[in-house]
Amino acid sequence: MPVRTIAWSKNCLKLIDQTQLPARLRYLSIRHIKDLWCAIRTLQVRGAPAIGIAAAFGMYLGVRHSRAKSFKTFHRQLKKATAYLATARPTAVNLFWALDRMNSVAMKYANKPVGTIKKHLLREAIAMIEEDHKVCKALGDFGASLLKDNYAVLTHCNAGGLATAGYGTALAIIYRAVEQGRRIHVFVDETRPLLQGARLTTWELRQNNIPVTLICDNMAAWLLAQRRVHAILVGADRVAANGDIANKIGTYNLALLAYHHHIPFYVAAPLSSFDGTRPSGHSVPIEQRQSHEVTHIQSIRIAPRGISVYNPAFDITPHKFVTAIITEKGIIRPPFAKRIQKLLTCQVGQ
Amino acid sequence: MPVRTIAWSKNCLKLIDQTQLPARLRYLSIRHIKDLWCAIRTLQVRGAPAIGIAAAFGMYLGVRHSRAKSFKTFHRQLKKATAYLATARPTAVNLFWALDRMNSVAMKYANKPVGTIKKHLLREAIAMIEEDHKVCKALGDFGASLLKDNYAVLTHCNAGGLATAGYGTALAIIYRAVEQGRRIHVFVDETRPLLQGARLTTWELRQNNIPVTLICDNMAAWLLAQRRVHAILVGADRVAANGDIANKIGTYNLALLAYHHHIPFYVAAPLSSFDGTRPSGHSVPIEQRQSHEVTHIQSIRIAPRGISVYNPAFDITPHKFVTAIITEKGIIRPPFAKRIQKLLTCQVGQ
Repeated sequence: MPVRTIAWSKNCLKLIDQTQLPARLRYLSIRHIKDLWCAIRTLQVRGAPAIGIAAAFGMYLGVRHSRAKSFKTFHRQLKKATAYLATARPTAVNLFWALDRMNSVAMKYANKPVGTIKKHLLREAIAMIEEDHKVCKALGDFGASLLKDNYAVLTHCNAGGLATAGYGTALAIIYRAVEQGRRIHVFVDETRPLLQGARLTTWELRQNNIPVTLICDNMAAWLLAQRRVHAILVGADRVAANGDIANKIGTYNLALLAYHHHIPFYVAAPLSSFDGTRPSGHSVPIEQRQSHEVTHIQSIRIAPRGISVYNPAFDITPHKFVTAIITEKGIIRPPFAKRIQKLLTCQVGQ
Repeated sequence: MPVRTIAWSKNCLKLIDQTQLPARLRYLSIRHIKDLWCAIRTLQVRGAPAIGIAAAFGMYLGVRHSRAKSFKTFHRQLKKATAYLATARPTAVNLFWALDRMNSVAMKYANKPVGTIKKHLLREAIAMIEEDHKVCKALGDFGASLLKDNYAVLTHCNAGGLATAGYGTALAIIYRAVEQGRRIHVFVDETRPLLQGARLTTWELRQNNIPVTLICDNMAAWLLAQRRVHAILVGADRVAANGDIANKIGTYNLALLAYHHHIPFYVAAPLSSFDGTRPSGHSVPIEQRQSHEVTHIQSIRIAPRGISVYNPAFDITPHKFVTAIITEKGIIRPPFAKRIQKLLTCQVGQ
């Protein structure tokens, strides 16, 4: 397993502090919901599946010291924790999916003592870690079939073990292909402004001895024009009902480049990243982040004072430009709407 | 005039050290050809027209202390200086254009004393500064007609006063439009790896009180998808005979985005950036630069050790994606090959 991004140990949540990579591999020990909220907001933990799991633990941390005697009181505290965590970041749907799931557990045990409910909440969050490993491996197995020997793959941001509990989505596909004996070369977009590609994906691939070449985001088009890439492979923060993809800013650009250069554009997304309530990407909220992220790199100012900055953290890729979406239940190809609906319905029915 | 990027003063060449901007506005005083070569190689002076003018002064600096008694000896020294300066950077054709022009001046006065030839060489280099101002203003005037009131323009890298002797190519168009009373908002790509957009273009536009919004390179597609940009405007390091454009890495990406979003893609290029000897962009040499530029920002390492880096400084935009090329002689629209040939022929005939 590539990394252990999230773990529950000694009564607290251990998270790799991803803002410190690649310089330092340091774990945070999180005991309070506020620290968890900050960890999500400041991208110490990031990546849609990892945000979801972290938020689930956040729910538990938010109520574990509750002295509520009645479910009504406990439920009010849970709702408060839910509302609070929901403000951490708006785009990755896994956050809301995890909060919903934790609330469902509480409701399921509403007639039990509060202490019992707390135990079930912790159990659920821990179960999500195990489940995530299974989901990522299954997704990786389905996706690996798309990558041939000697393929060069371009990826963006980090959809690896660091974006999940430890195995990854887009990178899981590469890990599985390599484990199956294929040689894969990975080109990595540095992914400005926060450099998740340069800092995290290159680090993670190096840890796994997978050959990697780093490029700046604006070099992808020229790389593709030279036919040096066989496929583009990214993760997703949210998949709308029609197959539109919300993902790290720059994803839409890559999708257009892939379309223009006749290269497949694959999106790896567990079902927890699907949002059946959004008919298309138009209504997905796009997080706008601080200008500081663009004008500074760490403590160094790279732009003059007094200018405006536009810093959307995500963009929407219309499904038209998506070749296939790889999930833990199989590969979905167009027409997406019908097939996504079927998949989500089956999922609900399970 | 926006800035004074290059000047001849007190017997030495004054250049703004562009690696220090925006933190410090510092002039280099260059007295030796080697320092000039380094200034070009390390991007203390950059931008195709500015490189050309600087190289012209480099030729003079290379021979000004010559003790040659015969033209033959002097000519050998000139050839050595030419060969040396030609290795500074390969892509911007203005460098070679300026070296050719200086050599022509020497040949013209071959029968004069060496001291006289030196004077003519210096005069020619100084004349290039004045000529550059006129060329940029004429180019700006032609281009300004393309920008309507309240236009938002996206630009890449720096094709401003800092890329010329002081007025710019792509930015000259914006300066002229603003001087004519139109309100123009400029979105600036930061232009990784060396951040010419974030560091130089924003600085220069601020100096001229033009409203500017900085974006990361990977945000352009999403900005265009939201119909927030009316035109893309870039410079060129070399224009091939068929209208293919060699320019800062990322230009080709923007051209594709403009094409896809039905937004005009304009290239500003003085005739000194045209290379009639290259039938297309295929044969234009693309400079590959050090991996350090991508893995570090100033002194900060942003990527792990031991990874590969791909760092082309330029890319080629096929003419198919170019709406128009703006020169000091007028605006060229497709079909480019015929019109470029005509323009270059007239130029030679003048």
